Amino acid sequence: VPDQRWVTVRGRIIGTGREPLICLPLVGGDRAALLSELAAVMAKKPDLIEWRVDHFLGIGDSEAVLAAGAEIRHLAGDIPLLFTVRSAGEGGRPTPLAGDGVVNLYARVCAGGNVDLVDFELAHDPVQIRMVRKASLAGGVKMILSFHDFTGTPGAEVLRAKCAAAESAGADMVKIAVMPHDPGDVLALLSVTWEESRRLAMPLITMAMGPLGTLTRLAGWLFGSSVTFAVGAHNSAPGQVPVEDLRVVLDVMRRYTGITRLCVPPAERNLPGGTFHGD
Amino acid sequence: VPDQRWVTVRGRIIGTGREPLICLPLVGGDRAALLSELAAVMAKKPDLIEWRVDHFLGIGDSEAVLAAGAEIRHLAGDIPLLFTVRSAGEGGRPTPLAGDGVVNLYARVCAGGNVDLVDFELAHDPVQIRMVRKASLAGGVKMILSFHDFTGTPGAEVLRAKCAAAESAGADMVKIAVMPHDPGDVLALLSVTWEESRRLAMPLITMAMGPLGTLTRLAGWLFGSSVTFAVGAHNSAPGQVPVEDLRVVLDVMRRYTGITRLCVPPAERNLPGGTFHGD
Repeated sequence: VPDQRWVTVRGRIIGTGREPLICLPLVGGDRAALLSELAAVMAKKPDLIEWRVDHFLGIGDSEAVLAAGAEIRHLAGDIPLLFTVRSAGEGGRPTPLAGDGVVNLYARVCAGGNVDLVDFELAHDPVQIRMVRKASLAGGVKMILSFHDFTGTPGAEVLRAKCAAAESAGADMVKIAVMPHDPGDVLALLSVTWEESRRLAMPLITMAMGPLGTLTRLAGWLFGSSVTFAVGAHNSAPGQVPVEDLRVVLDVMRRYTGITRLCVPPAERNLPGGTFHGD
Repeated sequence: VPDQRWVTVRGRIIGTGREPLICLPLVGGDRAALLSELAAVMAKKPDLIEWRVDHFLGIGDSEAVLAAGAEIRHLAGDIPLLFTVRSAGEGGRPTPLAGDGVVNLYARVCAGGNVDLVDFELAHDPVQIRMVRKASLAGGVKMILSFHDFTGTPGAEVLRAKCAAAESAGADMVKIAVMPHDPGDVLALLSVTWEESRRLAMPLITMAMGPLGTLTRLAGWLFGSSVTFAVGAHNSAPGQVPVEDLRVVLDVMRRYTGITRLCVPPAERNLPGGTFHGD
């Protein structure tokens, strides 16, 4: 049994095995839009904030990115900040960054002290992943390695291989997002989540996207997904539910699944069965 | 593809492939308790009412059962009434009925014209199942054949065999309830539900009981379960959620899974994929 399945960021535990942390994205295109979006998101009291920097029109100017990041950091108070440049191939907005431009931006941001986590895609070149790992470790930043399939739901062996690749690359967390075509795909994603969450020595974040996958955003945590992405001001991927509705559902589940605390001592984390029983 | 997966009872379609009908149980021990419970349940506007007659202390007196049934029928208005004597071995209250006592009671009730559906257990003797089938057909009553395991979650092949046995015995619907011991059991029950709901030529009702199984009562319909049992006045099995909370969750799911109508024309029923997509 792995002995380190959780990650602590600014005092928040990711990977408790209980209710998910709620992450709200920022997709503003410029400073003004971001700050107004951030104010709306902060009012919703997220557990994490993801800055989807691929939506930032100034992404080609690393000084502008660093300056915006510093402003977001200041206004986000003690909410952990996740920095993500999603590639166009995995659902992001096309950016002008070419070659090592993305890696250089991650490196500067990791050194800047304003972000707590970065999401980098497993599909990047292994050399680039190593560079981001090195920069994030040097900057005290946690690294999520991620995989997104907007076309379908790969088989369990493919998804398990993605988790294994994230492990080998030294990730602090792994994130997997798929597009289901029928309810069986949703169950397949949840089954991999349940199996891998017990095997991995790090937190796992999974979701099935689109309307069919809504259930995974509401209840994936029951099967081992540690973070759910919801809508604070604007959504960043199909199927995200407004945070108010997510909380209503979590509240019902909390009451009837016998789960009453958000964060539990890490010592209790390795008892997945005991997490859920209440009668 | 089966051509008759739904059942119509008093104008309500069971097996639309969309949101579940909500069934609220009555577990009163005597006439006064039942009528007071029924008033509370009617205020919650259920789609179905199940009279759990094993809880009725007068069960040994078939005239008393018929008289109570007539009163319930009258007060239930147009809500379909499901008559169930749950055996002690499958979660019911022990009753004094012995030998063919249960079958004779079902036969009289089916002939009485006051109930719309009966639930009879697959574990009964095949001869008894045939007798109840004959009586229910003669009385125009739909027959659910049911299987409950309060100790665990049998393998998929066992659950598939229960569905096949219900089919062979000429059931109008089949119901399967299991007790999960971990989230993997919940996924196993939902997977069988998804597979069998596409295969069977009749509606399927499934649930995983207890706190761990709560999700199946809230979301089993996404995978093909046609009815969910909730608490109106009193619960009748572990893990049932108050109907108010169930409706809150269904409302969120309705909005974000793109499903907007409760009942759909039967012609649309055989398109499980099309049922769920919204973007």
